[in-house]
Amino acid sequence: MASRIRELLRLVDQPGVLSLAGGLPAAEALDVPRVRAAAGRALDLVGPLGPVALQYGPTEGVETLRALLGRRLGVDAATVLVTTGSQQAIDLLARTWCGRDDTVVVEHPSYLGALQAFTAAGARIVAIGGDTDGIDVDHLSLELARGLRPRLVYVVPNFHNPTGSVLAADRRRRLAELADTHGFLIVEDDPYGELRFVGTPLASIADASARVVRLGSASKILAPGLRVGWLSGPPEVVDAAARLKQVADLHTPALNQLIVAELLGDEPAQRLHIDAIRARYHERAGALARALTQHLGDRVRHDAPRGGMFTWAIATDGTDTDALLPRALAAGVAFVPGSAFSAVPGSFPDAMRLSFATLDPGSLDRAVSRLRHAWDEPR
Amino acid sequence: MASRIRELLRLVDQPGVLSLAGGLPAAEALDVPRVRAAAGRALDLVGPLGPVALQYGPTEGVETLRALLGRRLGVDAATVLVTTGSQQAIDLLARTWCGRDDTVVVEHPSYLGALQAFTAAGARIVAIGGDTDGIDVDHLSLELARGLRPRLVYVVPNFHNPTGSVLAADRRRRLAELADTHGFLIVEDDPYGELRFVGTPLASIADASARVVRLGSASKILAPGLRVGWLSGPPEVVDAAARLKQVADLHTPALNQLIVAELLGDEPAQRLHIDAIRARYHERAGALARALTQHLGDRVRHDAPRGGMFTWAIATDGTDTDALLPRALAAGVAFVPGSAFSAVPGSFPDAMRLSFATLDPGSLDRAVSRLRHAWDEPR
Repeated sequence: MASRIRELLRLVDQPGVLSLAGGLPAAEALDVPRVRAAAGRALDLVGPLGPVALQYGPTEGVETLRALLGRRLGVDAATVLVTTGSQQAIDLLARTWCGRDDTVVVEHPSYLGALQAFTAAGARIVAIGGDTDGIDVDHLSLELARGLRPRLVYVVPNFHNPTGSVLAADRRRRLAELADTHGFLIVEDDPYGELRFVGTPLASIADASARVVRLGSASKILAPGLRVGWLSGPPEVVDAAARLKQVADLHTPALNQLIVAELLGDEPAQRLHIDAIRARYHERAGALARALTQHLGDRVRHDAPRGGMFTWAIATDGTDTDALLPRALAAGVAFVPGSAFSAVPGSFPDAMRLSFATLDPGSLDRAVSRLRHAWDEPR
Repeated sequence: MASRIRELLRLVDQPGVLSLAGGLPAAEALDVPRVRAAAGRALDLVGPLGPVALQYGPTEGVETLRALLGRRLGVDAATVLVTTGSQQAIDLLARTWCGRDDTVVVEHPSYLGALQAFTAAGARIVAIGGDTDGIDVDHLSLELARGLRPRLVYVVPNFHNPTGSVLAADRRRRLAELADTHGFLIVEDDPYGELRFVGTPLASIADASARVVRLGSASKILAPGLRVGWLSGPPEVVDAAARLKQVADLHTPALNQLIVAELLGDEPAQRLHIDAIRARYHERAGALARALTQHLGDRVRHDAPRGGMFTWAIATDGTDTDALLPRALAAGVAFVPGSAFSAVPGSFPDAMRLSFATLDPGSLDRAVSRLRHAWDEPR
């Protein structure tokens, strides 16, 4: 699965391919002038060991960034660990918190990078389905009553990758209760939470239980190329992750942490930046939905995304999306088939993750038109 | 060991402490104007997905940097993987190449971060001693004849951390032969190779065997805060490391890779930069040696470093360096006791790693004077 996605990500770079496959932010959302100014200020900082941006730094992260994240999250800065993207946060938690053959519960479908990290740690993955309101907490509760004993439950509560679902408020509370009752850790991975198009933000699961590790990331709100993420949670979980992080890469690049601290620290500018991204993605989500309706009609089923970057589309005519992909690439359009997000072979053969983030409305229309041609081709 | 070194690294930051403890480059070796200019050029680069420095990039690394490293190493760029510092390279190799209970051979003493990574992977560590010419290859050969079957042998051949040793040319060839005969992988970790004060560079172990993974780093020749390292070796080793790197952190920050490519790509400027670092460290190594002779005389034994950042000093009067450390800190000087580099409890109780890189000659003299006072104190 890993190697196949890596091949796919290579295809995204091919000229002529309109990609609905990436999990990339829009090029227009990457604000070079702001980053340039922030990098300039970051490089001016001098500490006792020389230029802070270029010297070794503490494993837990640069103090200014940890303090800022602590304020944003409403937690003590000492419980914040800066990571090299939130992918590293997942990997550190998998390695420190999941022993071999421990059980990890994931939503199904789930973020591929998380499935890979838990698998690499030797965990046994139990996948629980869901709907547009997120993971089916009733089903999880039933499995727990039947004896399931997860060490960790991994969820993406806001604008889920790949489905776009939002974990409903009552399910958040019940999941928190189950964690407290059964003693498992919840990993609340929230890279997309600020990219909300409609409605009001829901409370973090961490507001309802102390057994929650929250993951955040600069990738979707600033720039993924900086590779800055963070985690915050119970001190013993954070400490174990920090000890392993020292082994994994000593620390996240100081320059990048300082750039993120500069950019998030300028709250008015960052608010405008997020508003612009939200407006852009909202417009594009609508354009993709219209293109799907126009070109594919009732051959696909899809919900209107409430935020984030993805539309989860289901073929209603028995089309196998794994088989569709090579034809789509030949027609000049890329997407990620549902199987890539599956913890159980054979799941989601009729599904596709379509990213609306990187293409303008006209290109989204052309991309879906090409998809229609691939769909119609004789197999 | 990990937590203790982390505590030590915190003490380095205390005002008033003269630190011989760090593995940090000199503040003067971190060239902010060059990095600022390189960052500016890096942020100008635009690819099909937007600003290259800020967007997601390939797991293996940015093409320009891989190509440049391939030329420097004399290898195909396809066999180069960019890592988030060479610490990550060690961790990826430990995780992909060492199964639980596999045997890893290290020099004794050895770099703490490597010991931690192999231990975290569940490997059984066998430590082989050495001298100023590096690991005792005769001893290794004898152990192999007796049935030792390492999966991997980890060495720092140039200006070893902590001992400063240089693996002699004949030992490099014999180690390569042993790898070919017994089928183990050699990890040749070379962060300090360019920091040579005297003599001429020795051929890489990789010149004598295909069973070698070479690790390199921008940390000591440009800036550690960028966290850019690399590995190169047999394709199956590099491929496995790249697959796991996708799980570990997706990729190394694109901005940082482009900065390193800009800086290493300007060969005349980089040559001047390295010459200046070498001259500075050479002067400081001499100053530390003189201070040790003046203040501690025959109470410590130490060789003149031929390059790198470290002097390995041995107490000849029975002083226990673990016990000395708190007294030294109270006197305002820090060092790393030998036990921190030990794979076998109780080793090197009489040794200290002294870094000469970060202090000017006058401060080195004061630091050793303080060490002498700590030494003389009633226990």
